[in-house]
Amino acid sequence: MEHSFIAWAKQRAARLPKVKLGIGDDCAVMGLESLDFNSWDMVVTTDSICDGTHFILSECGARAAGRKLMAVNLSDLASMAASPIAVFLSLCLPRKDAGDTAAQVFEGVYDLASQYQVSIAGGDTNVWDGPLCLNMTAIGKVPLDRSWLRSGASPGDAIVVTGKLGGSILGKHLSFEPRLAIAMRLRELGIVSAATDISDGLGIDLLSMTVASKCGAEVALEKIPISEEAIQLANSTGKSAMDHAIGDGEDFELLLAVPSSKMELLPAEIDGVALTQIGTFISRTGLWSRDKFGVRQLSPKGYVH
Amino acid sequence: MEHSFIAWAKQRAARLPKVKLGIGDDCAVMGLESLDFNSWDMVVTTDSICDGTHFILSECGARAAGRKLMAVNLSDLASMAASPIAVFLSLCLPRKDAGDTAAQVFEGVYDLASQYQVSIAGGDTNVWDGPLCLNMTAIGKVPLDRSWLRSGASPGDAIVVTGKLGGSILGKHLSFEPRLAIAMRLRELGIVSAATDISDGLGIDLLSMTVASKCGAEVALEKIPISEEAIQLANSTGKSAMDHAIGDGEDFELLLAVPSSKMELLPAEIDGVALTQIGTFISRTGLWSRDKFGVRQLSPKGYVH
Repeated sequence: MEHSFIAWAKQRAARLPKVKLGIGDDCAVMGLESLDFNSWDMVVTTDSICDGTHFILSECGARAAGRKLMAVNLSDLASMAASPIAVFLSLCLPRKDAGDTAAQVFEGVYDLASQYQVSIAGGDTNVWDGPLCLNMTAIGKVPLDRSWLRSGASPGDAIVVTGKLGGSILGKHLSFEPRLAIAMRLRELGIVSAATDISDGLGIDLLSMTVASKCGAEVALEKIPISEEAIQLANSTGKSAMDHAIGDGEDFELLLAVPSSKMELLPAEIDGVALTQIGTFISRTGLWSRDKFGVRQLSPKGYVH
Repeated sequence: MEHSFIAWAKQRAARLPKVKLGIGDDCAVMGLESLDFNSWDMVVTTDSICDGTHFILSECGARAAGRKLMAVNLSDLASMAASPIAVFLSLCLPRKDAGDTAAQVFEGVYDLASQYQVSIAGGDTNVWDGPLCLNMTAIGKVPLDRSWLRSGASPGDAIVVTGKLGGSILGKHLSFEPRLAIAMRLRELGIVSAATDISDGLGIDLLSMTVASKCGAEVALEKIPISEEAIQLANSTGKSAMDHAIGDGEDFELLLAVPSSKMELLPAEIDGVALTQIGTFISRTGLWSRDKFGVRQLSPKGYVH
């Protein structure tokens, strides 16, 4: 199956932007003469997603899994303010219908590669007795020394999120749009001091930003944009919609630090997606919530009543 | 387990060559100002290896699996004449002893990263209900437009292999040395017109070179360097040692095309590893063997009696 899949994938990938030498040899060759690396940093991310953990193959199908793999990697690039150049796809395929599964995964990757004009530059295919396990490495570029790190937040910076949070398990974890367009717009504006994408959940990812930035965060609970899905989920889980918005993983929204002096430049929305200030980075370490009852410690896994 | 492993891995990786921003953020940042990309191409490869297919975890342990992962990727770089810069490690870990397994895999990767002075620049860790599944993406560099492609062989070029072939299942598939030092020496000499590494087996990989190069190959069977392990294996498999040398996968030796005019520059050995001419690329397509009985078609899976 491997050789015919590779030949097919090579042809499909030829419609996308190209690298110097793409699919089919021992390595891909990226001729970077056209990129002036006195002006750009190269950015690299890698993510694996597995059947049973990050998707349920029997429910969503292999194309949705492939799309998610690509979206997760593009979300990581967006969270560093990087624009994508090329991706590399590695497949560990269950023996049954391996060729068909590979083609479907590729098509899911291709959907977003085509949308964002990214090269599918290489990969690896394996057939094994385990469940479907997918890996992607994505390469992007960002203006020299302008990557958004988790460690860049300072006390006084606004905490800003894109979109609405919580309940992604109901579908958004597969169908989300990586926030590349928003990242590119904000990169142009030059107003972001730190960023990550919300993959582990708002609370955990915000905590990780505060630890990296050696500061704390105070969240105004009523400002958190709660998704319809979080509300829907709360009907059956016994947790509040707020719990879901803070604790649920895989929102893949951007979590940003914006210096207060630059908040007037922050658009209220970009491409129909709201950018919402939900609090402020503070010098006191830890996660804190502020509501009508005052300031209290906030659990990274969700609001504690 | 993930956060403590990442913190530990970040510390370990600090002893290796560094990239601009290594383990710990959403992406790694590779500042490539020091690389003049008017003089170099960047080369990228990715490989996954899985428990039960590429190694048996219960027999070899996780450190050997990590070493193999690194060696397989470095072998791909060597086969393009590329020197390694940085690797990215992605782990899908069985739930039981996940932290310990991750650390052992990392140590196996580290062993070769330290030997070849390669940066471990990033990665991803996941815990799941499947078997151990590892992915690595490796980035290297090669002088501009000087990559060794599979497609570069011409009729008349010598077919050259490094080392001895066959029987790697007895141990070499885990412990092999990626042929980076040999590749660097031959790159300096500038005498290689095409290359690949022998991963699927001499016959299959030679066939793939001939197809890419739009030519054929004639192999002098008695010239093929047969390993002790191939001879040992033949005692129990009913196949000949020659079958094993031609058909067995995972030798991870280099398979090279060297123009006849440059053969006088080819060292007989490099670092104690022999370089052996086993035949000649020819214009007639297909794989052919020449022995005392004359010229016959050669099966890519091994010598047919």
